[in-house]
Amino acid sequence: MTFFTVRYAPGTVTLIDQTKLPTEETYVDLKTVEDVARAIETMIVRGAPAIGITAAYGMAVAARTGVPFEEADARLRRTRPTAVNLFWALDRMKAKWGDDTAGIEAEAQAIYDEEVAASEAMAKIGEEIIEDGASILTHCNAGALATAELGTALAVIRGAHRVKKKIRVFADETRPVLQGARLTAWELMRDGIDVTVVSDGAVAHLLATEQVDVAVTGADRIAANGDAANKIGTRGVACLFYHHGRPFYVAAPWSTVDMSLASGDEIEIEERNPEEVTHVRGQRIAPEGVKVRNPAFDVTPAKWINGIATERGLARPHLGRALERMAKK
Amino acid sequence: MTFFTVRYAPGTVTLIDQTKLPTEETYVDLKTVEDVARAIETMIVRGAPAIGITAAYGMAVAARTGVPFEEADARLRRTRPTAVNLFWALDRMKAKWGDDTAGIEAEAQAIYDEEVAASEAMAKIGEEIIEDGASILTHCNAGALATAELGTALAVIRGAHRVKKKIRVFADETRPVLQGARLTAWELMRDGIDVTVVSDGAVAHLLATEQVDVAVTGADRIAANGDAANKIGTRGVACLFYHHGRPFYVAAPWSTVDMSLASGDEIEIEERNPEEVTHVRGQRIAPEGVKVRNPAFDVTPAKWINGIATERGLARPHLGRALERMAKK
Repeated sequence: MTFFTVRYAPGTVTLIDQTKLPTEETYVDLKTVEDVARAIETMIVRGAPAIGITAAYGMAVAARTGVPFEEADARLRRTRPTAVNLFWALDRMKAKWGDDTAGIEAEAQAIYDEEVAASEAMAKIGEEIIEDGASILTHCNAGALATAELGTALAVIRGAHRVKKKIRVFADETRPVLQGARLTAWELMRDGIDVTVVSDGAVAHLLATEQVDVAVTGADRIAANGDAANKIGTRGVACLFYHHGRPFYVAAPWSTVDMSLASGDEIEIEERNPEEVTHVRGQRIAPEGVKVRNPAFDVTPAKWINGIATERGLARPHLGRALERMAKK
Repeated sequence: MTFFTVRYAPGTVTLIDQTKLPTEETYVDLKTVEDVARAIETMIVRGAPAIGITAAYGMAVAARTGVPFEEADARLRRTRPTAVNLFWALDRMKAKWGDDTAGIEAEAQAIYDEEVAASEAMAKIGEEIIEDGASILTHCNAGALATAELGTALAVIRGAHRVKKKIRVFADETRPVLQGARLTAWELMRDGIDVTVVSDGAVAHLLATEQVDVAVTGADRIAANGDAANKIGTRGVACLFYHHGRPFYVAAPWSTVDMSLASGDEIEIEERNPEEVTHVRGQRIAPEGVKVRNPAFDVTPAKWINGIATERGLARPHLGRALERMAKK
């Protein structure tokens, strides 16, 4: 990779500023828990696994700067409600809090390293499930920029690419925050993978005109029955693929699976600032004073998902039973 | 109405500049056929019925300024390929070309007046088919800004509103040109109709969470079997409504129906400038050099359409047979 998403050196978390991509490639150094929390809230870093890693490093900063555990933990938990990886990472850091600073830092680094290994496992699955010649749609950014390295959905795609399968990717732009147009397009171009940007509304037309074969997205939280919360718009993509007879896959590290939730109905959906919808890069596009709804995520029902790729393998329908078996690994 | 979309005074077509809305309300006077053609191409005016009216007025300008028929007609036909109203209006003007200038201008005005009457008929249908308390999704702008007055889909909505049905409207923003966020929101706010803007990807979530009951959109060309071409994204909305068990209606003047096409497969889909996708109001949002697909329209199959409202009545499934009967009126 010619860039990185998140790195830690003692006392400092360094992030690529994803709000500035693709027009500027800049990195920010964060040295306080508050700075780390704000970076998550303002989406300087985003993507469920990357949020988890960044929060873990935030706790490492807390240990090194002497911020009390309760204060740092509470602040970081308040940042974003939907991605379970955040809470999973903070729970792991909590269990290590009795250690010295080096031990706490090592735990955060272990979380990073495990996410790298999980991405690698997803890439292996991609080598298998993506067919040579496939045209693949992905929504949002579930790439290196959303994880430690390689990505989740984009790890599946990179897996197919590295074994020389001829593939092409459609990245829908993913309004309102445009992670597809800004981030997925940017990182796939960096890798030399054939990528084409379309607006979100074009997906049904691509399906109708036989231009896409398969969809792969990430997830922010997966319930025990296989329902998957992901970036707003994912549910629509999954419904369209299902009803046009094409497979829809989800890729996520096991840390995204929340076996404590029976179904996606129990997943809290974050509502974000209306300005994400009324403005694009500071330019107003909707009338002043207009009402807005801006749910940041939606839930795709298990019935529209053909498989969930994790480091524990590829769960296939019946997803609920497959996840139950994998949870025992 | 506190604004108008298109007006004609001898030798001058006046248009509200829809590329500047909602932040600026400005009008442009066009005095040559070339200016009228460019206004259609650059979407200063858009919406199938409004394009037809504007082209008719463009021929009136040709008559008044002494531009030869063939030249003016050919130039205007080259502007946009998908909306049939353009060709329908130019065919009507062709049939009157032997008249004097006053007769040609009168024919253009007749087209305008007939579109007003058609909108009024769609509003009457809206009084009936929209239920009190309904939450209505519309895609793109099929309003006063797309027609002479009232609109097509928005005429249906205005019909329900004027008989005091309590309704609320969700306008999806409709990337890439943002007609929903910019135009539909603007004109419904002007009318005091409750409107909320959402990104295109949020439609499936609104359906999943029971926030929308019915969809109404316009159309740019309707084939004899009821397949309807409309703004890119419409097909996806229709598929989602169908598979969530909610009705999806199309509203259009009869001039949009093209009985010469057996199905939507025969409708030419315009591919527009990639910059509409890579830039928003002049700001770059995708990496330089990225590939783009920008189909401006898609085709919704008749099987997902619960009714087509025209001035000849409401065609209900079997749409092909209903349109065949109406064609004889």
